[in-house]
Formats: sequence, C-alpha cells, structure tokens
Amino acid sequence: MDAISVIRTKRDRGTLTPEQIDWVIDAYTRGEVADEQMSALAMAVLLNGMSRAEIARWTGAMIASGERMDFSSLARPTADKHSTGGVGDKITLPLAPLVAACGAAVPQLSGRGLGHTGGTLDKLEAIPGWRATLTNPELLGILDDVGAVICAAGDGLAPADKKLYALRDVTGTVESIPLIASSIMSKKIAEGTGSLVLDVKVGSGAFMKNLDDARELAATMVELGNDHGVRTTALLTGMATPLGRTAGNALEVRESVEVLAGGGPADVVELTLALAREMLTAAGLPDADPEKALADGTAMDHWRRMITAQGGDPDAPLPEARERQVVTAPSSGTLTRLDAYAVGLAAWRLGAGRARKEDPVQAGAGVELHARPGDRVVAGQPLLTLHTDTPEKFPYAEAALADATEIATGAVDFEAPPIVLERVG
Amino acid sequence: MDAISVIRTKRDRGTLTPEQIDWVIDAYTRGEVADEQMSALAMAVLLNGMSRAEIARWTGAMIASGERMDFSSLARPTADKHSTGGVGDKITLPLAPLVAACGAAVPQLSGRGLGHTGGTLDKLEAIPGWRATLTNPELLGILDDVGAVICAAGDGLAPADKKLYALRDVTGTVESIPLIASSIMSKKIAEGTGSLVLDVKVGSGAFMKNLDDARELAATMVELGNDHGVRTTALLTGMATPLGRTAGNALEVRESVEVLAGGGPADVVELTLALAREMLTAAGLPDADPEKALADGTAMDHWRRMITAQGGDPDAPLPEARERQVVTAPSSGTLTRLDAYAVGLAAWRLGAGRARKEDPVQAGAGVELHARPGDRVVAGQPLLTLHTDTPEKFPYAEAALADATEIATGAVDFEAPPIVLERVG
Repeated sequence: MDAISVIRTKRDRGTLTPEQIDWVIDAYTRGEVADEQMSALAMAVLLNGMSRAEIARWTGAMIASGERMDFSSLARPTADKHSTGGVGDKITLPLAPLVAACGAAVPQLSGRGLGHTGGTLDKLEAIPGWRATLTNPELLGILDDVGAVICAAGDGLAPADKKLYALRDVTGTVESIPLIASSIMSKKIAEGTGSLVLDVKVGSGAFMKNLDDARELAATMVELGNDHGVRTTALLTGMATPLGRTAGNALEVRESVEVLAGGGPADVVELTLALAREMLTAAGLPDADPEKALADGTAMDHWRRMITAQGGDPDAPLPEARERQVVTAPSSGTLTRLDAYAVGLAAWRLGAGRARKEDPVQAGAGVELHARPGDRVVAGQPLLTLHTDTPEKFPYAEAALADATEIATGAVDFEAPPIVLERVG
Repeated sequence: MDAISVIRTKRDRGTLTPEQIDWVIDAYTRGEVADEQMSALAMAVLLNGMSRAEIARWTGAMIASGERMDFSSLARPTADKHSTGGVGDKITLPLAPLVAACGAAVPQLSGRGLGHTGGTLDKLEAIPGWRATLTNPELLGILDDVGAVICAAGDGLAPADKKLYALRDVTGTVESIPLIASSIMSKKIAEGTGSLVLDVKVGSGAFMKNLDDARELAATMVELGNDHGVRTTALLTGMATPLGRTAGNALEVRESVEVLAGGGPADVVELTLALAREMLTAAGLPDADPEKALADGTAMDHWRRMITAQGGDPDAPLPEARERQVVTAPSSGTLTRLDAYAVGLAAWRLGAGRARKEDPVQAGAGVELHARPGDRVVAGQPLLTLHTDTPEKFPYAEAALADATEIATGAVDFEAPPIVLERVG
C-alpha cells in the first residue's frame, strides 16, 4: 500500500477500497503519508467525489484514529446538536440548557470560529470567568449534575480529522460534501452521543449556498450517523438573513439570555424550540415540553448552573465594545434583504472573528440589527449598529455592508421565508 | 494574491490569470506557497486542464525562476533533442556525436532515470572515468571543441520545475499533459538551444500510452518552443517494443558503440538517423549527411572525443553483471509481442534503475533481447538474457516478464510497426 496508488485510484475516478481508506487515514495521522500527498488526494476527492460506502469507511477510519467517548454511565439519554455554521447562530447557547431542563444530557463539544460565522466557544468566553477546556471527568460530572455542558472538544477525538481539517483549510479543499460530512460526523460519533440533530444552514451566510447541496450533505450525514448507531436527523434552515438581531460574541450571549428569559427574537425562539423538539424526540423523550421550560424559568436555571459550573459568572456585566457607529437607512420603504454573509463579514472585520487560529477575538465587537426583512423603515433611521474596540475598522465593515440591504418602495408583497425549510431523516 | 484563491480558480474550472501564474510559481520557488498547496493545485490542473495560454505563461514563469544559458558565442548552430523516455532508448548516445560530426553543436543536458525507463547519465556512467557534472565553462569548451556534450543539467536551470517535478513524483500528479509539457520545455528553453527535436514515445513502455495523448503533448511542446524562439519539431515514435536489443546501462552503451561503428540494430539506426536529420534541418544544416558520418567513422571519432573530454576511457572494457539467466521460448512460432513496459520493469528490478533518487544503479544489470517481434522462434531457444549482480532478483524480473511475450503458431501475417509514426511541427 502506498500513497501514490491511493491518490491515482481517486484521481482516475476509481473507488477506494476499504483497505486503501483505512491505510491512508492511519498513515496520514502517523505522518507516513505527507501533507502534500493528502492534499492532492483531498483535491481528487473534491473533484471526483466519493460513494456513500467510501464516505462511511472514511468516517470510520477517522473515528478509529482516536479515542471514543462513552456516556453510557449517565442516567439520562444523550442528545447533541451540530450546526454547519451561520451568521448570528447563537442557538447552541439557549438550546443546550433548554434540552437539559427537559431531561436529556447534552454534551456539546464545540469549536472556535474561523472566518465569518463565529464560534460557540468564542461567544461563551465573553462571559467573565467562563472556561472552555474541561477534563473528561469534569465534563462527565457537569453532564451528570446539570445535564448540559458546552466545552472544547479534546485533542483525542478523531485526530485524523483535526489534521485533515487544518490541511483542507489552506489547500482550497474545504468545499467537498464527502469531506465535510465525514469531518463533522467523525467528531460527533467519536464524542459518544446517543442521538444527534443536525442544523444544516442554507443561504448566503452558510456554507451551503443552495438547497440541493444542503439536502445532499444532510442526507449523507444522517445516513452516517444512523449507520454508526447514533439516532440522527437533520433540519435544513435558512441562512439568507442573520439569525436574530445580533452577530458578535457578547452581543449574542445577551440575546441568548433574552431567549432563556422568555423573550428574544422570534426566529431565534422558533429555531431553538424546533431543534429542542427534534433532540428530545431523538433522545426518546417525545413528551417533553420545551416551550414550558422556557416559560417557567427552568431553562434559565440550567443556563446559570451550566455557566457557573465552568467558572463563569452569569450575573457579571458582559463586555461592551469601546466604539459604536450607526448605519442608517438610505431611503424609506420595506426592507426586503439583509444579507447574512455581508453582516458576518462586517462582524468579522470589526473583530468578532479571527483570520487565523492563533488570533484573538474581541468580546464586544459585532453588528446589531435594528430591522429585519419585512420591516418598514424610514430614511435616516438606524438600520445597524457596528461595535468594535478598533474604530479604524469601521470603513472596512461599512464596505462589507455596501450592498447588504435592499429597501423596496411602494406596495410590497414581502413574506419572510420560514426558518425551518425541510426535515431530513 | 494568495495560494487558496489560485487553487480555487483552477478547482472551479476557471482560467488562471497571468498574474496568478507568475505569482504562484515564484512564491512556490521561494517557499511561500507550501508543498501541500502546490500539490492541490497540481491535482486541480491535472483534472481540469490548462489552456494553451495558461501553459505558455506557466512555462515562462518556470524559465524565469532561474538562469537562462546562452550559446550564441558558439560558431556553430545549436541543436538539441529530448525524448519523453522509453525502454532501451539509448538514442542520445550515438545521436549527439553524430549530429556534432555533421556540423551542429549539441548541448545535451540530461537527467537520471527514475522508474522503468532508465536515464542517459546512468548509461554513460557505466564508462570507466566518465563524469556527468561539468561547470558552465567546461560545457562551453567541449561544445566549442568537440561539438557535443552530454552532461547533468545544472541546478540553476528552471529551479521551479525541479521542485515541482519532485513534488509531482510523490503526489500522483505526473500524468498531466500541461504539466509534462511545461516541465520539459522550461528546462529545454532555459538551456539556450537554438533548435530542438522532440522524440515523443507512444506505447506500453512510454509515458503516453496512446497516439492521441502523444499528439497533444507533441503539439503543445512544439508550440511552446516556437513561441520562445526555439525552432521545435517532434517525431512520434513507437514504444510498444524496446528499442534495439538491450535495456540496461553498460548494455546500452555497447549497443550505441555498435551503431557508431556502422552496425547495431536496424531500429536504433533508423531512429538515430531520423532524429539526426530533423535536428540538422532545424539547425539550418539541411544538406548534412548523417548516414555518411556513421559510415565513414567521423561520428565514432566525435563519440571518442566527447567521452574523453569528460574523463571517460572509450577503450576501457565495460562493466558486466556477475550473474546471468536465460529466458527461453515456451513454444515455437512467430514472436508477435515483446512488451516494452515488462522489459523495462524487469531491467529495473535487476538493478538497472532506481526506485528513489538517492539509490545507486548497477552498471551491468539489464535485459538482452535475442529476438524481436516478427522473428521466428523455436521452443527452448533463448529469448532473453537477464543480467544482474544480485541474483536474488531474478524471480522478480521473471515475474515482470511473465506475460511479456506472445508467440503465434501457424501462418502469421505479422508486420512490425514503423519506428517513426508521425511528424509534428
């Protein structure tokens, strides 16, 4: 077995054998297959595809490259959620304590943001004292006690994926459904959850720009999960417009707390509840009532305990950016478009996200939305507020937003698209 | 400009801009673009192709990565030949002194063999005392005096190609006509020859297995050469059967000397003369008579002076392998096939070639052919003799040859295909 013959097989549109896949993933993890060989193979996979059987084996080989966690000692069923990433997507923050309040255990092992979509850990780190890194016994202890934990995934889970993801990021080989599906699912399956709900985003602010690609990605991941004994379903959800009214770290924490307090933007509440119902059904708790848990404060109670258990102070004031700038509506009419990608890019340029893994993020930076598509606006009213500690970035954020909005005059028959587009599984 | 955007352009079937090509070749040579990025780009080029304009720019960028030699101080016109590599292809050895004897200067900067096709320098190093490495003044001196020199290409010529070729070799990205054409032509153009004849091999023992691919490669290279002011033509020549009656280093030197002495196998003589005529015409010497130069000993005289000028002793006995083994004909009839690739692989396994750049080669190892397609053979007669210093390799060589021959019984209407299949340019 050698790297060149594996690369040639895929390059020439052949099907990789199980032995080739097992070998190349293991040898790459050990460093026997070089980065330049794996990136050539990744490009061949991106351009020539993989069959469902190849993707399944590839995923299995990445799981086998590291440890596999086990939550079977817990009294409660485990339920996990993964989102493919969107602008303003703070759903994990209210969702994990909400589902825990309804009786499931939610081990939410998350990543940091890279690019315009932001990362869950970056958001929670805006809370004074909160720490992302836990030992396995700490993780199990909080799960057992509170029922929800959001923390950094350990290095021991699917190390092959960790190495391959970093490689794909610098070699133009990210945008491959087989590679995306196997990357996400190898981590989630290794993590040991009993059930999983996937939130596959579609639209300008998402990785998948169209519904067909999103469907294919969702179907691939649902099949991978179920084949590995994880009850898996997926929702396809819209990401043409940012979720809620904020994009940024502390800004999104504040909005999440509003949702847990029974308020918050309607779209965030709707998606949180839809995902909670999916998770609870998949976890074998179809009669749980997440709407009630939001209304009666038990979800908020679990949030506070979850944050406290990881050193955070749920009552501490959240950081605010030193500088603000308002973007006003250029004309009067109905706002018909507020582009998610543009807002994500602006938030990123203001300091909410990072260009490289090592970069710090600003807790207070981001974009606040004062109107959403469908709203009537008047010329000169505030549309967006930009937040940053580095005001020299305002012009770059404004440039990102130059074509982000559309305002229609006259009679407009505008209806905002639904949040949940389809269900797969 | 960044590597990922260049990779994405080609990945998504776009056309690379001249600026992208110049930048990526220069940045790769300087180490700013990493190997894993270049291999992903090479795979995208292999699978999605390059236009003629992209190939021309890519070649130009590789030439510009290093020095460019200049033979304009010579009194004679320069003529060079490049072969895409075949089994038993010793043509450079008699050809260079023959063309020099007819009045052109032949700066034959060559490489070492990798894989089953053998390298010109490895062959000449079988001659006691002969050295491949010359300084530029030595090279010019021998060219001026003898008119022919065969030596190692200096590191200063097209360093981008040197680095990229080594990368392609380990990443399954060799078999791309745009990358092959630009690799060959960047070195040949940087070398400074005034005219160039390409010997593009077609058949099992060659890189190009079919005539269409060979035609495309030849046409691409001819255009590249002429665009850069090098008068370039190509012959497509057959490589289904090994050239001549030997494959191996010292074995091929012996056969080359037979040709220079006015004898040698008919196919080697025919191809040597055909290429000599092409080179002399391209060099502006259409009235030269290479047949006469072979017959009257002036080609042999130039060979002896060329070898002597590089420290070699043309009269020294050539090395012989310590062990031999005969492969006999399994039946009587007409030999209709003697597979070039199988013979090349057997010679390589016997020690004539190397698996890695650092490996040594055996001067005496190789395969001797006692019959060629079209010949009548009798069961039990010697078909091949295997030569090696490492007799434990005999079984591996025999395995390579297991399906290499076909002997037809009864009335056979077999005609050996011509050596020169087509001319391009």
